[in-house]
Amino acid sequence: MTDIAQYVDAHKHELLADLDAWLRIPSISASPEHAGEVRRSAEWLADRLRVAGFPTVEVWETAGLPAVFAEWPSADPDAPVVTLYGHHDVQPVDPLELWNTPPFEPTVIGDELFARGAVDDKGQVLFHLLGLQAHLATTGRSSPAVTLKVVVEGEEESGSPHFRQLLEDHRDRLACDVVVVSDTSVFDRDTPSICTGMRGLTDCQVDLHGPDVDLHSGSFGGAVPNPLAVMADLLAGLHDADGRVTLDGFYDRVVPLSDQERELFAKLPFDEARWVAETALSRGTAGEAGYSTLERVWARPTAEVNGMWGGYTGPGHKTIVPTDAHAKVSFRLVADQEPLEVQRAMADYVAGYDRDGITATVAFGGPGVRPCLTPLDAPALQAATAAMEAAFGQEVLYTREGGSGPEADLADVLAAPVLFVGVGLPDDRIHAPNERVVLPMLFKGAQAAAHLWAELAARPDVKRR
Amino acid sequence: MTDIAQYVDAHKHELLADLDAWLRIPSISASPEHAGEVRRSAEWLADRLRVAGFPTVEVWETAGLPAVFAEWPSADPDAPVVTLYGHHDVQPVDPLELWNTPPFEPTVIGDELFARGAVDDKGQVLFHLLGLQAHLATTGRSSPAVTLKVVVEGEEESGSPHFRQLLEDHRDRLACDVVVVSDTSVFDRDTPSICTGMRGLTDCQVDLHGPDVDLHSGSFGGAVPNPLAVMADLLAGLHDADGRVTLDGFYDRVVPLSDQERELFAKLPFDEARWVAETALSRGTAGEAGYSTLERVWARPTAEVNGMWGGYTGPGHKTIVPTDAHAKVSFRLVADQEPLEVQRAMADYVAGYDRDGITATVAFGGPGVRPCLTPLDAPALQAATAAMEAAFGQEVLYTREGGSGPEADLADVLAAPVLFVGVGLPDDRIHAPNERVVLPMLFKGAQAAAHLWAELAARPDVKRR
Repeated sequence: MTDIAQYVDAHKHELLADLDAWLRIPSISASPEHAGEVRRSAEWLADRLRVAGFPTVEVWETAGLPAVFAEWPSADPDAPVVTLYGHHDVQPVDPLELWNTPPFEPTVIGDELFARGAVDDKGQVLFHLLGLQAHLATTGRSSPAVTLKVVVEGEEESGSPHFRQLLEDHRDRLACDVVVVSDTSVFDRDTPSICTGMRGLTDCQVDLHGPDVDLHSGSFGGAVPNPLAVMADLLAGLHDADGRVTLDGFYDRVVPLSDQERELFAKLPFDEARWVAETALSRGTAGEAGYSTLERVWARPTAEVNGMWGGYTGPGHKTIVPTDAHAKVSFRLVADQEPLEVQRAMADYVAGYDRDGITATVAFGGPGVRPCLTPLDAPALQAATAAMEAAFGQEVLYTREGGSGPEADLADVLAAPVLFVGVGLPDDRIHAPNERVVLPMLFKGAQAAAHLWAELAARPDVKRR
Repeated sequence: MTDIAQYVDAHKHELLADLDAWLRIPSISASPEHAGEVRRSAEWLADRLRVAGFPTVEVWETAGLPAVFAEWPSADPDAPVVTLYGHHDVQPVDPLELWNTPPFEPTVIGDELFARGAVDDKGQVLFHLLGLQAHLATTGRSSPAVTLKVVVEGEEESGSPHFRQLLEDHRDRLACDVVVVSDTSVFDRDTPSICTGMRGLTDCQVDLHGPDVDLHSGSFGGAVPNPLAVMADLLAGLHDADGRVTLDGFYDRVVPLSDQERELFAKLPFDEARWVAETALSRGTAGEAGYSTLERVWARPTAEVNGMWGGYTGPGHKTIVPTDAHAKVSFRLVADQEPLEVQRAMADYVAGYDRDGITATVAFGGPGVRPCLTPLDAPALQAATAAMEAAFGQEVLYTREGGSGPEADLADVLAAPVLFVGVGLPDDRIHAPNERVVLPMLFKGAQAAAHLWAELAARPDVKRR
């Protein structure tokens, strides 16, 4: 047993006591009547960070609910700077009758602790405080080996509506060499893993206009443009026969999967049959030729039709050539694709359909979300891997996320690589009744956190400025 | 002036008097409170046919509103048998305030008579009675040169819901060598024409099912089947780059346009720019390569997407892979395509998409409607052409109809060629306020009808049995 493991084991009751206190505050951000509780949660955390020794602790106001910021400079002015992200708000608890224990009365049963927010995300914020304490105690330091900044937002479960603005307002104070996000899961209980990237996103609506009135398909059909048929052609043309997206230059910036990453993905104990069943795919999977299911979801960009409509959609038949056709299309992006470049390619593609009696337009739902990816050989990721392996005592594998959260804004605004160091489990029932955290996972998280700061400080090339 | 022209001119006041009386009966089939008026209209016509000399006149009941049947055998037992079709019901008159004269008070202004039903179809039924009278008077006959059967239905403006059943119930009594339909228009006032065919129809709904629940496109997109994308591919695949329908064997039975028919179509004074404007095609036409607009609408089969829907169609964006996609598709058919064969080809085509995680099904909206076409060299059409040319004193051209009406059932149940001998004009405002009939056209119709029976009787090969 390492010193760190012994320290965490000796002090784990402190983590549990903190967790019990914080989880009793129902900081539901989606519920306006809980706004006071979210503020109380921020104040509780700010106090706890002061007790931990952070010399700077501030509650940051937003146009919505408050975030907490703290900073503890390293004694070494050349130490890497780390910004740690988490959130202190929680999901609503409905349907309450499905909870076996009251959601805001934390209850330990065996090695599990049940409460709303237990793992998402209060438990994962608090393991860092025990980890930091272990880091200081076992190294005899009076300040961390890295300059540690903490930002814990209060609106993540409501879609982080003000988080990007917060980051932009405080860009200088949050500036760092690496972002550590602790709000995610490992692959499974027996397979510790680190998430190395997230897909980005851009979405749009395509509108096609043909005749100015619905026309009788008998009297006119065959000689007039049919916007539904043209829309079908436009949407079908987004993919080739191999399931690849056809937009001009779409793959130009895509970082290909390395052989090493594919081998490591393949080592994950992924049960495809179970995944198919849990995904309600009674007829099986489909996707880009040449890639596995995990590769398709994690590491390949997509074009998806999210909705389409036009013409007569009621019962029976109405033989018309309609005036309009509409579709909502979104693209999942992978590093280093740029949402605005994809938007330009899509706009060009749609413009190609502005002919033969059809007016074709496309409108994008904002600037989109950049994908992020930390290469396997990035020094910070090597440090995180070493820290996790020290905590778990076994090989750590790599995953990615198919979607994106506020972490994308962190990577984008702070222009720093993001490490996802989380110890949740896929079956922790986040957002559902009976959310839990598996306590041994939480303690492993504290150990990993304790190792992480020393591992980062030991790698000079983590520093980016 | 021919004897017939002189006779019609001398007796046209009788036609106007009949028309005035019949048009005062508001036989609106779509309005249940007018059911008694529709019956009164049938009785009026039955009486009038008896006065005209028809030895057999019957009011035929249906599950809805009554039709009128009459028969006048030729003295020549070898004469061709003709069944004449029309309808005695009329469209509703809303919006009443847009009428310049009361719709059921026939008003002559200049050479136009204004009333609901003036041309659609009471005027066109009645010109036949004056024509028959002229035929008998000018030839000295006591019975027509053909055996003449008349069927005038009372629900045409309500979609003829019971007409096919009526035809099937009375198939033997309506048996004939040729059907004459007088419920259509000529190309324009200066261009007498005969319609030689109508397109048929079959319609269906295609349903695709993918995941059993809507899936998050970030967590799952790229590895799961997207029914909307597959539907787009299915619909786009219905046409090739030349706008031709790709269904297996779709064109095998299509009677190609003859050079003669294309030349005659081209002689019609078709104003494409005006048609485009009236069709509200602010961006122009589109269709199968190698055919003119009239050819596309009249003589070429089509596949049209009438409606499609699936996924998220509300405001903003929802990045889902949806469970289902739906489309309504209809095919316009031309002779000699068989609706059931097209249905089989479509079913096979859709079945080809029942793979890669997608369940694909198609349901047809009934047996469909057969197209009909009378070849230009058909003896009956030659007779009708000669009759029209005698009445109008100029070359008669040919048109077709892009859609189909109850006439398709006549052709199908009675298995006889259909001649469309009508003298309406495209701007007669049928179904709209201020419907009118142009009186000189009506009198030309009477002349054509008078010539027609002799022309048919003079061509022994009109007889088909």
